[in-house]
Amino acid sequence: MDYRELSTPALTIDLDVLERNLDRMARLGRDQGVGLRPHTKTHKTPEVARMQLERGAVGLSVAKVGEAEVMTEAGLDDILVAYPVFGEEKLRRLAQLARMRRLLVSLDDEATAQELSRAAGAQGSTVGVLVEFDAGFHRCGLPPGPACVDLARKIQKLPGLQFRGLMSYFGSVWGTEEARRQEAEQVAERLGQALAAFREAGMPVEIVSGGSTPSAEFAHRIPGLTEIRPGTYVYHDLNTYYQGACRLEDCAARVVTTVVSTAVPGRAIIDAGSKTFSSDTLRAGPGAGHGYVIEAPDAPLIKLNEEHGHLDVTKSLHPFRVGEVLTVIPNHVCTCVNMHDEVFLLRDEQVVASWRVAARGKTR
Amino acid sequence: MDYRELSTPALTIDLDVLERNLDRMARLGRDQGVGLRPHTKTHKTPEVARMQLERGAVGLSVAKVGEAEVMTEAGLDDILVAYPVFGEEKLRRLAQLARMRRLLVSLDDEATAQELSRAAGAQGSTVGVLVEFDAGFHRCGLPPGPACVDLARKIQKLPGLQFRGLMSYFGSVWGTEEARRQEAEQVAERLGQALAAFREAGMPVEIVSGGSTPSAEFAHRIPGLTEIRPGTYVYHDLNTYYQGACRLEDCAARVVTTVVSTAVPGRAIIDAGSKTFSSDTLRAGPGAGHGYVIEAPDAPLIKLNEEHGHLDVTKSLHPFRVGEVLTVIPNHVCTCVNMHDEVFLLRDEQVVASWRVAARGKTR
Repeated sequence: MDYRELSTPALTIDLDVLERNLDRMARLGRDQGVGLRPHTKTHKTPEVARMQLERGAVGLSVAKVGEAEVMTEAGLDDILVAYPVFGEEKLRRLAQLARMRRLLVSLDDEATAQELSRAAGAQGSTVGVLVEFDAGFHRCGLPPGPACVDLARKIQKLPGLQFRGLMSYFGSVWGTEEARRQEAEQVAERLGQALAAFREAGMPVEIVSGGSTPSAEFAHRIPGLTEIRPGTYVYHDLNTYYQGACRLEDCAARVVTTVVSTAVPGRAIIDAGSKTFSSDTLRAGPGAGHGYVIEAPDAPLIKLNEEHGHLDVTKSLHPFRVGEVLTVIPNHVCTCVNMHDEVFLLRDEQVVASWRVAARGKTR
Repeated sequence: MDYRELSTPALTIDLDVLERNLDRMARLGRDQGVGLRPHTKTHKTPEVARMQLERGAVGLSVAKVGEAEVMTEAGLDDILVAYPVFGEEKLRRLAQLARMRRLLVSLDDEATAQELSRAAGAQGSTVGVLVEFDAGFHRCGLPPGPACVDLARKIQKLPGLQFRGLMSYFGSVWGTEEARRQEAEQVAERLGQALAAFREAGMPVEIVSGGSTPSAEFAHRIPGLTEIRPGTYVYHDLNTYYQGACRLEDCAARVVTTVVSTAVPGRAIIDAGSKTFSSDTLRAGPGAGHGYVIEAPDAPLIKLNEEHGHLDVTKSLHPFRVGEVLTVIPNHVCTCVNMHDEVFLLRDEQVVASWRVAARGKTR
């Protein structure tokens, strides 16, 4: 079936583009001399995670315990929960998973470590722990230096926990290549401070995890980094395009949508709104608009209601008509995928299969 | 179980508040002399739809065929698909539903009417049709006047379709009460033009459907309006609060979340981000921020990543600590509910049950 025959709105993935993106990042990791532990938050799909592991990824990253469960249920292993999980029910599930799988968790607080230790003790499991430091992005993480060593020492003393190294969040700079290079220098300096403190304390740091899709090519500029966690590169989106991290033809995920109204002059309304694309704004490039219409780039998607997308067609040469199928590259593919129960897979514009987005909505 | 013991993030609904909101809108509809056909897009839950019908609603509104299916599978009837559905697969499902239930569809294009007629013919069913006119919000809808009559005449001639009246979208003004009053006047004028054209043509208009939560109290100012489609009023949110359409204590839906990091000075990070709240911005009031923290209104939720919420605690008197449970009123409850597979129901802060958000993600 041609993708234009899909019931709309539908999210499609071009398999050739996906495979090319996977190959390229696998190669980039090898070239940069770092392990690849891709973040599954983008695809939330065990099938893609398996393709990543088959291409040499050292493991997987997730944010939530529910995502880790989906991946382990699919038989996958070596998962970093790159999130300071807190709460008895979630930590119990995490400790249960650690009985069957190699599991790492990042955290930045003694209370979290204590709760995790208690949960691991109750399950008789061991969980590897990475101490999160703040690489300058002011989200989570201790200041790089003695505070990290202090927490690592406490972790070493807690039963069921094993201190394995450091983790940080960086690589979200929405700017030029030069801005990303400067970011890499800042991260390198702060990681250097953290590592110096551990050296001084005589504590080995086995793993240092950090990085994203746009920052991946700068990994070699951050001495001590052992693995990176890019996510978006599998499908790419308008944000990574405008960041210069991909070409438009590397965007594997597209929303197939139908024009449902042209009654209002200057507008064409499509059957995809914020409940199909998500409301995430464009963080780079023009910084406005909700997607790129392949068939009519001169018709900006200026507004989303929940189920309506508003194309401004006043300056478009395209003759819009009700019933016409359009394809749109979303601003932010990670939140877009999370709106969909399934994605449809294309080869040469033909729908060849579908995947369930098995970890969609796993917020816990 | 106290709601603070829920695994987080979780979306809770206070049943007392919900029932009060339902009662109030049912009364408002009666007082305004219009039927209530609530839009189920907010709750996407048959249990709430049933409560609305039990309180005298004349029917239900949905945007998508999948939402209509969820409601009919739950045994509910008389559903307006307030959306110009286009596409063979969806229209077939719609026509199938029309064999079992009273169904209305709104549309504004002859091509849509023809496709719907074909689908109804194939299923041997009859679908009621409302012609959508543009009340001045420039989304869908024909200009009020002869164009509406022309389309209605074509619908009358198409087999399987029954022209029933008019529909319009309005009531999204994010301003003062005065702005909403002016909006009502504009809508009244445009509806008047549409109705005059039908009078002139000697065609009766049985149903005129329009309106929203913030505009509900102005329904009596729009002569000819027979029913309103408010959605948000069931749970309310920060947008309807800042529009003056409710009090803060009328917000029935709250995200229960845990503080997971306080390592970065001036920040507290909660375990709920855009995949829990949605990224919908605040459209009224301060126009910034992502939610209202009940326990610490002086700590604005300034930023969302996918799974992290950033509280700016620099000016807060609240002593944030990791593991602490907070409750947050979302900006836009319709898109927030759509992120969740289930909602937890509270009476006096105790979790008494849960509902599956059965129509969540039904984009087709």
